Amino acid sequence: MRRSVATVSLSGTLYEKLSAAARAGFDGVELFEDDLIASPWSPAQIRRRADDLGLRIDLYQPFRDAEALPDEHFARVLRRAAHKFDVMEALGASTMLICSSVSPVAIDDDDLAAAQLRELAEHARARGLRIAYEALAWGRHVSDYRHAWRIVAAADHPALGTCIDSFHILSRGHDPQAIREIPGDRIFFLQLADAPELVMDVLQWSRHYRCFPGQGGFDLTTFVGHVLAAGYTGPLSLEVFNDVFRQADADRTAVDAMRSLLVLEESLRASAGNDRAGMVADLDLCAPPAPVEPTDFAFAEVAVDHTSAPGVERVLTALGFERSGHHRSKPVHMWTQGRARVLLNHGDARVADTLRGNALVSALALEVDDPPRSAARAEQLRAPRIARDHGPSEADLAAVSAPDGTAIFFCRTAATDAQSWVTDFLPMRQPAPQAPAGITCIDHVGLAQPFDHFDEALLFYRAVLGLRLQGGQELAAPYGLVRSRPLSSADGAVRIALSVALLGRGGSVRGAPEPQQIAFACDDIFAASRAVRAAGGELLPIPDNYYDDLAARTDLDDALVARMRNSDVLYDHTARGTFLHFYTPLIGDRLFFEVVQRTGAYDGYGAPNTPVRMAALRAAAQD
Amino acid sequence: MRRSVATVSLSGTLYEKLSAAARAGFDGVELFEDDLIASPWSPAQIRRRADDLGLRIDLYQPFRDAEALPDEHFARVLRRAAHKFDVMEALGASTMLICSSVSPVAIDDDDLAAAQLRELAEHARARGLRIAYEALAWGRHVSDYRHAWRIVAAADHPALGTCIDSFHILSRGHDPQAIREIPGDRIFFLQLADAPELVMDVLQWSRHYRCFPGQGGFDLTTFVGHVLAAGYTGPLSLEVFNDVFRQADADRTAVDAMRSLLVLEESLRASAGNDRAGMVADLDLCAPPAPVEPTDFAFAEVAVDHTSAPGVERVLTALGFERSGHHRSKPVHMWTQGRARVLLNHGDARVADTLRGNALVSALALEVDDPPRSAARAEQLRAPRIARDHGPSEADLAAVSAPDGTAIFFCRTAATDAQSWVTDFLPMRQPAPQAPAGITCIDHVGLAQPFDHFDEALLFYRAVLGLRLQGGQELAAPYGLVRSRPLSSADGAVRIALSVALLGRGGSVRGAPEPQQIAFACDDIFAASRAVRAAGGELLPIPDNYYDDLAARTDLDDALVARMRNSDVLYDHTARGTFLHFYTPLIGDRLFFEVVQRTGAYDGYGAPNTPVRMAALRAAAQD
Repeated sequence: MRRSVATVSLSGTLYEKLSAAARAGFDGVELFEDDLIASPWSPAQIRRRADDLGLRIDLYQPFRDAEALPDEHFARVLRRAAHKFDVMEALGASTMLICSSVSPVAIDDDDLAAAQLRELAEHARARGLRIAYEALAWGRHVSDYRHAWRIVAAADHPALGTCIDSFHILSRGHDPQAIREIPGDRIFFLQLADAPELVMDVLQWSRHYRCFPGQGGFDLTTFVGHVLAAGYTGPLSLEVFNDVFRQADADRTAVDAMRSLLVLEESLRASAGNDRAGMVADLDLCAPPAPVEPTDFAFAEVAVDHTSAPGVERVLTALGFERSGHHRSKPVHMWTQGRARVLLNHGDARVADTLRGNALVSALALEVDDPPRSAARAEQLRAPRIARDHGPSEADLAAVSAPDGTAIFFCRTAATDAQSWVTDFLPMRQPAPQAPAGITCIDHVGLAQPFDHFDEALLFYRAVLGLRLQGGQELAAPYGLVRSRPLSSADGAVRIALSVALLGRGGSVRGAPEPQQIAFACDDIFAASRAVRAAGGELLPIPDNYYDDLAARTDLDDALVARMRNSDVLYDHTARGTFLHFYTPLIGDRLFFEVVQRTGAYDGYGAPNTPVRMAALRAAAQD
Repeated sequence: MRRSVATVSLSGTLYEKLSAAARAGFDGVELFEDDLIASPWSPAQIRRRADDLGLRIDLYQPFRDAEALPDEHFARVLRRAAHKFDVMEALGASTMLICSSVSPVAIDDDDLAAAQLRELAEHARARGLRIAYEALAWGRHVSDYRHAWRIVAAADHPALGTCIDSFHILSRGHDPQAIREIPGDRIFFLQLADAPELVMDVLQWSRHYRCFPGQGGFDLTTFVGHVLAAGYTGPLSLEVFNDVFRQADADRTAVDAMRSLLVLEESLRASAGNDRAGMVADLDLCAPPAPVEPTDFAFAEVAVDHTSAPGVERVLTALGFERSGHHRSKPVHMWTQGRARVLLNHGDARVADTLRGNALVSALALEVDDPPRSAARAEQLRAPRIARDHGPSEADLAAVSAPDGTAIFFCRTAATDAQSWVTDFLPMRQPAPQAPAGITCIDHVGLAQPFDHFDEALLFYRAVLGLRLQGGQELAAPYGLVRSRPLSSADGAVRIALSVALLGRGGSVRGAPEPQQIAFACDDIFAASRAVRAAGGELLPIPDNYYDDLAARTDLDDALVARMRNSDVLYDHTARGTFLHFYTPLIGDRLFFEVVQRTGAYDGYGAPNTPVRMAALRAAAQD
C-alpha cells in the first residue's frame, strides 16, 4: 500500500516538510492548506518539487463549511471551490477533503447536504477531480462516519466518496465495524491518527494530542482491518496534530511516522487470519522479521572520561563488581558480578563531546536468540545502524541507535557460541565465586529521554525491541514534573524505564537533565547495603521523615523500619509483592546506581519513592 | 488578613520554598506533606527555619482517606493520625487538612463519616490541634462542600471545622452562595486557586492547570466575598498545582502569588458595598491606589548597539520617522511621526549583554494622568522599581520592571507640564508638518514572553497597568504553536499583545525566540506602503498563495485584492470592522515593525494572518 503523511504532522516550512517526508520513504503527502497559503512557492513549484522528491500529493485538505448551507452561502462555496480546484490542478492533487460543516448557518438537512455535495462533485468531475467527505467529531450536524456515508450514498456521484478518519471515529467511541459495509471504492481516503486516552474536550484533544499509530490508546489494527476488509486500496495516511511534532526535527518525526506505519502494517498482517477473502494478505504490507524477545541484559556500557572514570570505578568496586576483563583492541573494561556486566568505555568517540566530566549509559546489549534477526528487524523498522570497527577475530556485534542516541546491541553471550562478544575480552582476573554484595543481574536501566522524542522512544523500545509498555506515572521532582513510562519483557528479565520532563525541562536538579540510572538486582537488600558500606561505598541518604511516614502509613514492624532507616533502604508494596531498594549518590551530574530486591511478583520500580530519591539527589548535589 | 501559600505551589526544595514565601511577604505556608517527607530537615528544624523567616505553618496537608471506613481500616487511620499529630506538634502546625475519602473501601454513610471525623477531632483536641475537612471535587462519596459541611455540623466537635477550597467548588460548578450559611468560626481554612476554563477530567485539571487568582476564569471576588460574609477571619491561602510554577523560579512565583492576592483583596474591597454588616471593610485588606488607565503610548524605547542601530534607523527613516531630538545626558535619540515616538537608546546598560547585534524593545512609556499614583500602585503590587539616573534638570520618570524585563514608564508628555520627559530632549530638527507615511501613533506592541512567566505577565499588565484581557489565540508558527493574549485599554488607545511558545520553545524561526514588534497606526495603508517603498524601505513579502486564498474566501473585488498583493498588505475582517496591515522584514533576529489601519470598531490584531507573517519571517530569515 502507498504510505502518506499530512504536512501538518511535520515541523518547518513546506520545503522542509516535503523533504522530510521523502527522505523517510513516504509515497505521498496530504497538503494542508495553511501550509500552502503560507508558502512562498506557487502550486506549480510545489508540484515540481514533490515530483522531484517522488512524492504524490494524495489529498488537498481541508475544505470547510461546504454543505447543508442556505443558497446564498452555497453560491460562495462554489466560487471558493472553483478557486481551490484551480490550485489542485496546478498542484496535481486529485482529491479534496471536505469535512462536515461547523458553520452556524448550516442546516440539519441531509437531503440538502447530499444535493450540495453532489453539485460540488459534479464541478470536481468536470476538472478530473474528486471529493472525499468526512464527518468531523465536532461537526455541527454530521459527526458520525455512518451519517457522512449515508449522505455520500444518497448523493450518489462517482466523484464523491467518503474519507474515513480514525481520530474522528474512535475519539467519539463510535463502533468502526460498520466501515466494512461501505464499498471500498467509495472510501476515497483513509486518515490515521492515534491518541492517548484523555478525558477532555474533543477539539482540544484532536488539535494538540494526536500521535502516530502505536503511540496512543486506539486499536488501529482492528480499525484499519475494517477499512481493508471493505476493500479500500488507497494510501495509509497519517494526519497527526501534535504540539511536540510541530516543533521537533521534521526528519526525525517523519522516520517515527514511517516506523509507526510499518509496525501497524505488521500487526495488520498478523491479524489477517480474520481477514475476509484474504484481502489483507494480498496487500503489499511491511513484513519485518518477527520480534525476538530479549531474555536478559548482556551488558550495559557506560562511557567515561578521565574525570568520571575513577568515581564510577570506585562505586562499582563498592557495589562488589570486579574488573574481570579488558577488550582486545579498545579501551573498554568489563566489570562483572553474577550475571550483571558493566562495560566501562574509556574512549567512546560517539559521546566524547557530551561527557564533559560525566559518565553516561552509552549502550545496552540485549541477550537474544537470534541477533542477526533482531538487527534485521530493527533496520527494517528504520532504526539507524551504527557502524562499528571490529578486529579480525572479534565479534561483529549488530548495533542500532535508539531515539535518545543509546546504542542497542543484540547479543548471545554464551561462551560456546562463536558469535559471543565475551571472547573479545581478555580475562584480567577470575570473578570471585561469591558476589560480595549478592548482585545477580541488571534489574533495569532508567534513561531520561529528549523531550521531542519521547513518543518515538516508547514506540521504538516497544516495537523494535519487543518490550511491553507498563503503566505510567507523573512524578514530582523538586523542579518540575517528570513522566515515567517503563517497558519490560514479558517475564521482566529486561526492563527499561524511560522518563521525560513534562514541560521539557525541570526535574531533580535545577538546569540539569534528569540523570540516568542502572539498577542491579539482589536477593537480600540489607546484606547488599551492608556490603557496600563495608567496602567504603556511600548510599544516597534518605531523610528520616520518609521513615516516619513509612511507619505511619504501613503495618511494618518498628524493627524493620529501623533497619531500613539505618540502611537507607526504601520500601514499596503492591498486591503483587514488595520492593526494597537503595541508591548510590550521583556520580558527576548524570549517573547513579540502584540496588533492588523484588519479592513476590512485584512488577514496578518503587515509583512512590521516586520523588524522595529525586529530592535526595538534589540535596546531595547541594553539598 | 493573613496571607499564606502552599509549599506545593512553589518550585524547589522545602528550604527554597520557605525562603521564597518569606521574601515575598507571606505570613504563613500550608506545608504539603510530600515536601516534608522528601526533606532532609526534621520537623523541629523546619519549625525553627519558619520561625526565623517569620512564617507560621498554617496548615499541614493533606491527610487522605480518613473517614467513612470499615473499622479495621479506621483503626489504621487513627494510628496514622497519631504519627502525624506528633509531626504537627514538632512543626508547630495547629490545623490538619483532611480531604474527603477516595478509598475504594469508603462507605457511603454520612453518620459513619461524622462519627469517625469526630473521633479524629477528639484525638486532635487532646493534642491542642484541630482538623479542617474538605470535599474533594473527585471524592468518592463526598464531593460537594455543602455535603462536607453537613458532616462536620453533624459531628459537632469544636476541633472539627471545614476547609473551603475554591477549585473543588468552582470546578464542579457548585453555587458558592451557601458558604454564607456556614458559621465563619467553623470554616477553619480557605484555600484559593483560580483555573483556566478547560473542559477536561477534573483531576487532571486540578493537578496541572490551577493558577493564581486573576489568572484563570473563576470569579474569586464573589467567592471570597461569600467566605468573608460568613465571618471567616483565617488566612487567604493559595494552593496551586501548576506544571509551570513547579519548574519556575520560586522567588518570582511567590511574588506573582502575592500580587494575585493583593489584587484579589483590592477587588474584595471594591465589592464591599454589597457586604453584609461591613465585615469586609473591617478587614485589613490591601488598598493600593486605584488603577490609572493609560491613554496612549508616550513612547516605545528600543535598545540598539552599534551593529543593530543602522538597520533600525534605516527602517524608521523609510517608515517616515524623523530623528527629532537627542537626550540631554544620555545616548538616546527620539524619532517621531505624528504622536508616535520611538526612542533609540544606544547605551542601555540593562540590556547591553543580551543585545548581541540585535535591537530590543527595552521600555514602554504609558501616558497617564497621574504618574506618581501609577508608580505607587505598581510598587504596592510588587512591581520592582527601576532605579534611574537623571540629571538635575531632567524629569524623574517613575519606572517599574515588567515580568519580561521591559521597563514601564508612567508619563505626562504634554509640553506645558513641568514633569514632561520631552524637555529632557534637545530638539534636533522640527518634525515635518506632514507625516510622509501618515503614521499617527503606536497601535500596539507585541512582546514574546518567557515561558515560565506568562501567567505572571498577563496578571501584571492587566492589574498593575489597568489593561483588559482580550480573547486569546493559538497560532501555528513554522516550528511550533504560539499562544497570543492581547491586552488593551478600554478605548483601545494602548494595546500590548503578549505571546508565548506553547511548549516553551518553537515559533517562527528554529531555535530563536519569537521576535518583538512595534505596530504603528495609519489612516491609509496603501499610501503608507507606497511611501515606505518610495523611501527605499522594504516590506515583508507576502506569498501570492495568500492573495489567491483571500480572493477565494472573501467577496473583495479583484482590483482591491490586486492592490493588496502589490502592496504586501494583509486583510482581516470581523463583524466590527476591517484591518489592513503590512510588516517590515526582521531587523536582526528580534524586532520588526508593522503598520496597521483599523476601520470601524475592529478590535483585533489580524491573528488569522499571523501564521502567514511567521512563515514569511522564516522565509526571509532563510535568505
